[in-house]
Amino acid sequence: MSELRKDPIVGRWVIIAPERMARPLNLSEPELDPHAPDPFLEGREEITTPEIYAARNPGSRPNGPGWKVRVISNKFPALGVDGDLENRGEGMYDMMHGIGAHEVIVECPHGEANLSQLPLENVREVLHAYQARLNDLKRDTRLVHALVFKNKGARAGASLSHAHSQLIVTPIVPITIQEELDGAAEYFRFRGRCIFSDMIEQERTTRKRVVLETSQFIVFCPFASRFPFETWIVPKTHRSHFEKVPRGEIEELGEVLKRTLRKLERGLNDPPYNYIIHSAPFNTPDLPHYRWHIEIFPRMSGVAGFEWGSGFYINAVPPEEAAEFLRETRDD
Amino acid sequence: MSELRKDPIVGRWVIIAPERMARPLNLSEPELDPHAPDPFLEGREEITTPEIYAARNPGSRPNGPGWKVRVISNKFPALGVDGDLENRGEGMYDMMHGIGAHEVIVECPHGEANLSQLPLENVREVLHAYQARLNDLKRDTRLVHALVFKNKGARAGASLSHAHSQLIVTPIVPITIQEELDGAAEYFRFRGRCIFSDMIEQERTTRKRVVLETSQFIVFCPFASRFPFETWIVPKTHRSHFEKVPRGEIEELGEVLKRTLRKLERGLNDPPYNYIIHSAPFNTPDLPHYRWHIEIFPRMSGVAGFEWGSGFYINAVPPEEAAEFLRETRDD
Repeated sequence: MSELRKDPIVGRWVIIAPERMARPLNLSEPELDPHAPDPFLEGREEITTPEIYAARNPGSRPNGPGWKVRVISNKFPALGVDGDLENRGEGMYDMMHGIGAHEVIVECPHGEANLSQLPLENVREVLHAYQARLNDLKRDTRLVHALVFKNKGARAGASLSHAHSQLIVTPIVPITIQEELDGAAEYFRFRGRCIFSDMIEQERTTRKRVVLETSQFIVFCPFASRFPFETWIVPKTHRSHFEKVPRGEIEELGEVLKRTLRKLERGLNDPPYNYIIHSAPFNTPDLPHYRWHIEIFPRMSGVAGFEWGSGFYINAVPPEEAAEFLRETRDD
Repeated sequence: MSELRKDPIVGRWVIIAPERMARPLNLSEPELDPHAPDPFLEGREEITTPEIYAARNPGSRPNGPGWKVRVISNKFPALGVDGDLENRGEGMYDMMHGIGAHEVIVECPHGEANLSQLPLENVREVLHAYQARLNDLKRDTRLVHALVFKNKGARAGASLSHAHSQLIVTPIVPITIQEELDGAAEYFRFRGRCIFSDMIEQERTTRKRVVLETSQFIVFCPFASRFPFETWIVPKTHRSHFEKVPRGEIEELGEVLKRTLRKLERGLNDPPYNYIIHSAPFNTPDLPHYRWHIEIFPRMSGVAGFEWGSGFYINAVPPEEAAEFLRETRDD
């Protein structure tokens, strides 16, 4: 069983998951082998772990063909649902069992690598799958937070090219999310306004960092972008929890996500990228100061050196230039 | 001129340095070209920026041959010393000019790629160079913090194989260091002891995460290691500022650093790695709660996916196993 361990200095929790050693560890940079058999293909359902959720055609059967989106357990899970947390100490250190969930969202039945190339309905089914899984998992009161994320391309950490994303649900709130929550709460205390709302207001006024805007969403390169072409999708309607976004807004998000990814792919020559859905913890009520949003990081360059461990970023592409470039890139 | 920009939510400062675009940006993973001319070689001093510091043989002249270690400005600096900070706002956002320094420490006159392979005296000269530069730079009261770091190997962000490290001096304290300072101060408030001292005590007692120990240093894989084979070098003598470490301790550090890197290189097949010297800000007095130390991160695998932007880490190698392996690896 894996373990959650807390750094005693900064309070960051880390997952120590030796089970994942079974996964091929490459010293050389991994290349996705286009000839390797694709375990996520429709018709090969029996070789994956059993499905937890699927968007299925009427009449099709679980773990058989006839689906658009399928959610399964990660074959090499970082966390598992069985057992007790056993929050305990080892001298000055804190640890608990690696209780949680680690799932894979297979985004399409065939081998398409880019989420953005799927039909709009299929993209929306992926977002519905995210929500369905979060709403199911949050019933387990041991679990307090979910990170939904995508690693696209070998250099972004993907080990398979078939379009997929992942979710990791934890009994602790990741420090990055906690810092956002704290920072946003402080802003709210001083000003009585949601910081995301003020940010949207300013971005809509100056427009220089805006990539695209629809009736319910704004997409922009943030003022203090850590990475070249870092892009955020932020909803105009205030809501702290992604899993509570209503259906109509999710439908529009599907379109916005597809268009945004398409721009990045067209403009940057199909780069590896990560996206992460930032959302409030399960165990908080609706928060007036925090807003769910999606952060996308193209892995543009090999220059991520000491940023890796230092949290200190140097970005050679001003977000104003990145946004202008992406605004002018076609999204079809 | 580059800019320092503050993320309004979490308070993280980022360097936006468009000048660095001149540096080759590769979409594909960079490979160091072993046949590319090496600008850091002895005898090619005229093709680098002028030297700021050098450990020179008696009678040799600045910017000519006859040196062991040489410090120059980064050719594509992220920050520069000229101008004013002009701390200012843009609506809700904070920014200032990119004032600071970005220097390169060339670690040897010939083309050796591994610091650990240099004669011990040469390694010590590198550490003396770090200290000399910090002590010089801290006289500029605009500058409050220095990160000394090394990117070894293309996948760790190096663009040249000739052994070198870098330092970036900033007018702000990087958020990672600030979080360490805050966490360590809180521990001290509760317990009246330095957290690093307690950590050393526990590591020396259990020994299971210790890699090596000398009279003045302990090297261990930290309890909540973010990365496989993450290794810290921590001094037994309490001191918050690296630049104030006395000569005798630096001499021993040279040996410890050389042995530690040698173990990583031997055991892990010469992996890319980063190291970062963590040290208190220039503008603080000696701090009873914080201790300078070195964090080393081998870039073992391509699995660093969403960790990149999320700050949420999954590590497949328990530090106890990493330490045992490194303990048993030869360091000669």
